Amino acid sequence: MDVSALVLEMGQKGKNAAKLMANAGTDKKNEALRIMADLLQEKRKHIQSENAKDVTAAKESGMSKAKVDRLTLTDKVIDEMAAGLREVSQLPDPVGEVTKMWTRPNGLRVGKMRIPLGVIGIIYESRPNVTVDAAGLCIKAGNSVILRGGSEAINSNRCLSEILQEALSRVGLPGDAVQVVPTTDREAVLELLKLEDYIDLIIPRGGEGLIRFVVEHARMPVLKHYKGVCHIYIDEVAEYDMAEKICLNAKVQRPGVCNAMETLLIHKKAAPEMLPKLAKSLRDAGVELRGCEEARKIVPEMKEATEDDWYEEYLDLILAVKVVGSMDEAMSHIAKYGSDHTEAIITTDYRRAHRFLSEVQSSVVLVNASTRFNDGFQLGLGAEIGISTSKLHAFGPMGVEELTGSKFIVFGDGQVRS
Amino acid sequence: MDVSALVLEMGQKGKNAAKLMANAGTDKKNEALRIMADLLQEKRKHIQSENAKDVTAAKESGMSKAKVDRLTLTDKVIDEMAAGLREVSQLPDPVGEVTKMWTRPNGLRVGKMRIPLGVIGIIYESRPNVTVDAAGLCIKAGNSVILRGGSEAINSNRCLSEILQEALSRVGLPGDAVQVVPTTDREAVLELLKLEDYIDLIIPRGGEGLIRFVVEHARMPVLKHYKGVCHIYIDEVAEYDMAEKICLNAKVQRPGVCNAMETLLIHKKAAPEMLPKLAKSLRDAGVELRGCEEARKIVPEMKEATEDDWYEEYLDLILAVKVVGSMDEAMSHIAKYGSDHTEAIITTDYRRAHRFLSEVQSSVVLVNASTRFNDGFQLGLGAEIGISTSKLHAFGPMGVEELTGSKFIVFGDGQVRS
Repeated sequence: MDVSALVLEMGQKGKNAAKLMANAGTDKKNEALRIMADLLQEKRKHIQSENAKDVTAAKESGMSKAKVDRLTLTDKVIDEMAAGLREVSQLPDPVGEVTKMWTRPNGLRVGKMRIPLGVIGIIYESRPNVTVDAAGLCIKAGNSVILRGGSEAINSNRCLSEILQEALSRVGLPGDAVQVVPTTDREAVLELLKLEDYIDLIIPRGGEGLIRFVVEHARMPVLKHYKGVCHIYIDEVAEYDMAEKICLNAKVQRPGVCNAMETLLIHKKAAPEMLPKLAKSLRDAGVELRGCEEARKIVPEMKEATEDDWYEEYLDLILAVKVVGSMDEAMSHIAKYGSDHTEAIITTDYRRAHRFLSEVQSSVVLVNASTRFNDGFQLGLGAEIGISTSKLHAFGPMGVEELTGSKFIVFGDGQVRS
Repeated sequence: MDVSALVLEMGQKGKNAAKLMANAGTDKKNEALRIMADLLQEKRKHIQSENAKDVTAAKESGMSKAKVDRLTLTDKVIDEMAAGLREVSQLPDPVGEVTKMWTRPNGLRVGKMRIPLGVIGIIYESRPNVTVDAAGLCIKAGNSVILRGGSEAINSNRCLSEILQEALSRVGLPGDAVQVVPTTDREAVLELLKLEDYIDLIIPRGGEGLIRFVVEHARMPVLKHYKGVCHIYIDEVAEYDMAEKICLNAKVQRPGVCNAMETLLIHKKAAPEMLPKLAKSLRDAGVELRGCEEARKIVPEMKEATEDDWYEEYLDLILAVKVVGSMDEAMSHIAKYGSDHTEAIITTDYRRAHRFLSEVQSSVVLVNASTRFNDGFQLGLGAEIGISTSKLHAFGPMGVEELTGSKFIVFGDGQVRS
């Protein structure tokens, strides 16, 4: 079978499975998730022997140690995948929730009810645990999923998907609700992206190159996550201790992730007193500072920031620092250089706190809290399939609810249109 | 300036305008909409003289009378456009609404707040009133809009957009929030569809060919409306009078629209008594019936339906009729042949009414009401920019609320992540 026909058949099977999954009911879906978790642990040896094929091939091909680590399904990773599935089984089922209902003058009662999206395609790089995590969330929300992982993980992914399918079959749900593209042929991705009549949503997870490729070629909607150039703005009237605690957390706790602070903006009236102390704390924590001219007048040890620094997602212990004349200047800077990801204000002023929350158009906007809270678990979504940096459908962390849509339901009593 | 540079500049201007529109405030947006309405009526003569250029050229090129009618901006059409803008000015502003809010164990208060989508592109065919209607809704929801109408309406659209821009400027909002692509060069559409960094959403309004073209080439999300193959299922225990009234309304009141009934499904226990009477009423109203074998045993005058009939969107006084053995068979038929648009059940049975509402995955599902209610005004959205037949972001009629997204807002008190 050629790749085009193979992928088309997967789309058709996925769509048929999605119809059954949409009405599967909460109990059955949760039972399948629990059995998946059990089977992953029971079949640990089998999974690890399939995974070993990928790991061996990866080492032979000269893959970096960090990447080999991410590819390897240790006991710990398998247990975490199982625990994740059990947690997802305990989340509320979004499907069927009536989010609002109103009555029309003619007596029609109109409501909006959450429904699954249908078939979700996930295109990702080499970490095989994504196969299980993403499939679990899609199943919980009543969808079917087509997974296309990195070619280096093909044996692991095939093995994992067989286990997930077995669990679905055991409770009478369609095994085709979880499919892994069984070939490493690169053409398969392009063919997947053409299936707008079968796949309702594509989620690429990986670097900007992968995402741009998917956006360019996909005929169906894409939920994408570009970079996070996150800002903290320290207002004219902030408490120093809180500012220091939050800035250190946002920059240092885990600098390599998308919700770490990349640029600090500080009001010119706060800077003379706060910036020297804050700069010292950050430098003591290993952070390299790159400042604007004003900032360097106050803390001459800073390097000079160039125009490029304001756009930069360092993902490292480096921080750009700019002194601003007003909150408006801070917000203009964010609008120009930011990536609509996460921004925080630190202030004791009521009015500016509310203005900042309203006017900054990023996916998560915080007052007096660390940017590191832009995360599905931290914000209380219960899980996370990704963070969307585009505004349609979902913006910010996406949990199971964001893997559903909604339909209108109408209770009538013989009404017709005049 | 070449087309590519022209369109890119429009995208940049649109994005800058969108930043200002996002925080424009309700009063200013409403005032702009009211001034737009006033100016349309004050400048009626000017609009009509520009429109006459398009109408004359269209007639010379041999355009059909029906299309020339849709192109012509009569006094009535201009007054309707103005009235539409005034109605939109009175709708609630969706921007800033906090749709929910919850508190995390660490005390963070997390909410979701509606925000504008940004820049919306609308690609449509020759009716110039779409320019005003669509722009009004986009402005109300705090977006900026780039409009690309049919080339036959270019003079009308340019003139209308200048008037809309004047109204925006008068209240201090950016004129660039409404832009009409000033060239009829077909290349401009392709260039627009590449601007994923500037345009947040594309809405094509027109035939399936236009929509497929946009879906294939757009790099940004597309909200699309394919066909409406709408079903009514008459259950085993329906009231005949209600069934007749609803079926006639759904088929006959306006057969050429997407929410008209195209296929009637009737339970085998109801068919012997109801179908002869119903067939007579429908035929008296001028409807041609095409039935399955069972239906033709009961009403032999029906033509024979072919497999193709079940997929057909007639948009005409033709109805396919099928006798089914159960509601499950009806729902399977809908899932196989339907277009996810609008389906209704007519029944007195509580349990089946609720099962049908839950299990049928179309954008609007009704009990005991006409399919013709799938419409933004009828369902109470206050306005309609289109009907989406895909599930992401919006499914079914789209009003101003569907032209917004949402961001997370977080009220903290010094929280950091551990």
